[in-house]
Order: sequence, then structure tokens, then C-alpha cells
Amino acid sequence: MSSGKQFTLHGDVIGPNPLKVAVVLEELGLEYDLVKVNIWTGEHKKPEYLKLNPNGRVPALVDHSNGDFTIWESDAILLYLVEKYDKEHKLSVADVNEKFKLIQWLFFQASGQGPYFGQAVWFMKYHQEKIPSAIERYQKEILRVLGVLESVLSKQEWLVGGKLTVADISFITWNEMAVGFGLEGVEGGNVEKEFPFVYKWHQKLVTRPIVRKFLDIQAEAFKQSAQAK
Amino acid sequence: MSSGKQFTLHGDVIGPNPLKVAVVLEELGLEYDLVKVNIWTGEHKKPEYLKLNPNGRVPALVDHSNGDFTIWESDAILLYLVEKYDKEHKLSVADVNEKFKLIQWLFFQASGQGPYFGQAVWFMKYHQEKIPSAIERYQKEILRVLGVLESVLSKQEWLVGGKLTVADISFITWNEMAVGFGLEGVEGGNVEKEFPFVYKWHQKLVTRPIVRKFLDIQAEAFKQSAQAK
Repeated sequence: MSSGKQFTLHGDVIGPNPLKVAVVLEELGLEYDLVKVNIWTGEHKKPEYLKLNPNGRVPALVDHSNGDFTIWESDAILLYLVEKYDKEHKLSVADVNEKFKLIQWLFFQASGQGPYFGQAVWFMKYHQEKIPSAIERYQKEILRVLGVLESVLSKQEWLVGGKLTVADISFITWNEMAVGFGLEGVEGGNVEKEFPFVYKWHQKLVTRPIVRKFLDIQAEAFKQSAQAK
Repeated sequence: MSSGKQFTLHGDVIGPNPLKVAVVLEELGLEYDLVKVNIWTGEHKKPEYLKLNPNGRVPALVDHSNGDFTIWESDAILLYLVEKYDKEHKLSVADVNEKFKLIQWLFFQASGQGPYFGQAVWFMKYHQEKIPSAIERYQKEILRVLGVLESVLSKQEWLVGGKLTVADISFITWNEMAVGFGLEGVEGGNVEKEFPFVYKWHQKLVTRPIVRKFLDIQAEAFKQSAQAK
């Protein structure tokens, strides 16, 4: 807390939502301490963490340069960071209409991609019984969302403003799942082949050194967790 | 299109997301034409509508006073409306930090309430087979989200800034479902008794004349659709 860095990020970068906040902090050159919140031992449900985020989810961000202002919901955090600290529009846009387009895509990510891709993983890996019709429902939704992105990215390189923004970055972690294992065995589920523009866009994102670093940390953590089982 | 009104709202107010946009337009005294998009006949997937919203979901809003600027994702639309047209902060806040809190709650609604309450309805009413463990999963999530809201609303009357904002309004339609039929037969699912602060807040919202008007239209439409079956 007293390291003197501007921000404290509470979460664990192996989770999809803390990861994107860490990426944006580092892409913008902002300094932060990471306080790990272990969701496997329920730290995110303890009173101390609920004071930061009553929703009991990671991440939460504290901005010490703004009176310890605390904000949660990862896409709200991304907006906060670019609106306050990205005056050069490295990851944002200057035009007001474009700004609302950026917000629109963040809401699509938060409401249309994250929850449904997450439900696919839940029913594929964690649910107490195998329910093929539920797995199919959510894998179909992954295909639908990738189709929406493909229809847009076949006509433009980035989601907003002709440039990389936090809107693009917000989609990385769950798309990495879809490219990885989320569509295994699904007809039409070869992302590179069926959604070539999405795939190309995703490759541009995941080969950015800061993004790559965090995805490698995440992959390593999952490997270790699988070995521990 | 040529009625001279400032906005065209594409959607059908019986859907939870178009409804909240119509409420906010009317609460702010903004004039709009409603163009009904019939999702039961797939109008939202036709090329003409996809030009407005490539996601193929309702609503989409066109602002004729801003060069026919088009925006979708209902919570992004709410933000657009208050940032551009609510200079007196009737449904928004003036302080910058509070504005980001408002955005945070909109993202919680969009990512944490809407999708999960919607999955509960899906598995309760529309899925091809009855899967008790899936219904239970999403009803438990409704209880969890109501618990988060209760923990906050037991200490403050509104979500942000000590006043009614679009953040509160964004939760109405899905909470109406939870209060209505979403938790039927669920232990701890009596919202009035188990989540009294949420219930009181919700009652204040749904007794606003504009909100009531649209909820009545919605209830009537559902009644007719049930009778038609």
C-alpha cells in the first residue's frame, strides 16, 4: 500500500478480468502494486475484500493519486484509466462519438462475450453433471459472437476509430479461450479458418509483448494447477 | 424517420433492454419514434437491422440531431443519453468520481445481473429439456446478485450519488422478473422478506409513472402472448 505506486490492483492476473486491467495499466505505463486475491480459498468473499468490492469479484482497483478512489468491474476500470490517464489517446479515441462507440463495444464484451464464454467453460469443465444441451447452447453462442466480430473486422482493422483501443483489449482473454479449447470438436469451430479476420486481429493483440507476458503467466499457472490435481 | 423527432428507437418495449432505453428517453423528456423490431419473426437478424446493429440484438438508437449517430448496447445508450442530454443531472451525477461509480454499476448490471437472470428464465421456460441443476445454478446467482445489492442499499438509498440515476433504472426490468416469477419455490427467494432494502428500492422505481406505464405494456403483451399459445 505504501510503496508509493499510483495504483493497487486487487486480483490475480491469471483471471480473465484482472488480466486485462494489468495489461492496460502496463500499456499506459502506469505503476501499480498487485495484491493477489486467492479466489480458490474464498478471499474475494471476505469482509476485507468486500469493503473494496461488495460484488465479491476480482478485480478492484484503488487509485492512490485520487484519494484512494476505488472502482470495480473490469471494463469500468478500463474506461476510468483511459479517460483520466490516457490524454495522448494511446488506447482510446479523441472524438466524442467514437468514445461512445468504444463504450458500446466494452458493454458488448462485458454482457455478450464474457458471461457466455464463461458459461461454456463452466458447463464444459466444472458443472456437477455433463449436460450436452447446455454445453451446446454456450458453444453456439461463442460461434455467434465470433460471427458478429467477424462481420465488423472484415471491414475494419480495429473495433473503434481505426486504431487499437481498450475495446479490442477487453476481448483478448475470453477469445484466447475460444481459440484454445472452447470450441474443441465443434463443427465450424476452427477460429483461424472460419473467422479469419477475428483470428488475425486476435493474433495482433496476443503478440503484443505486454499481453503475451500475462498470457504466458496465465498458461503457466493453469499448467501447475492441472499438475497439482 | 422523417417525423422530426430527435431519436428513433429500434426495438420493442416489451423486451427488458429496449424498455429501459424508452424509460430514460421519456424521463429526460426526449422525443423519439419507436420502430418495432419483431424478434419472434427474426427481424433483428435481417440485413437491414444488422446495418444498425451487427450484434443482431435490440435495442439500437439513432440520434438524428447528431448526424444519425447510431449506438447499441442498452447501457451504452443510457450513458450516451445522460452525458449528452442530461445537463441538469436529472438521472446522472456531476462529480467525475461519481460518474465512474455510475459506469461501474451499469457494467455490473450488464454483466452480472442481465445475463444470469436471463439464463434463469431460459432454463426455467425455454430450454429443450428440464435441467434442475442448471435452473438451480442461475436462481442461486439471482440470490447472490440481490444480496450484493442489499448489502449496498441497506446503507444508502440509491446506488450512486445519493440520488436516482440511470444506474438504478438499468436494474428495473430484470429485478421485476426476480420479484415476479424468477425465484418461485426457491428457499430464501421471497424478495420482500429476504432483501427488504432491494424491495423498497425496486418499489420506488416501479411506481414512477413512466416506468409503470412500460411495465404495464410489457405485462399486457406477455398475457396476450400466453393466451395466443
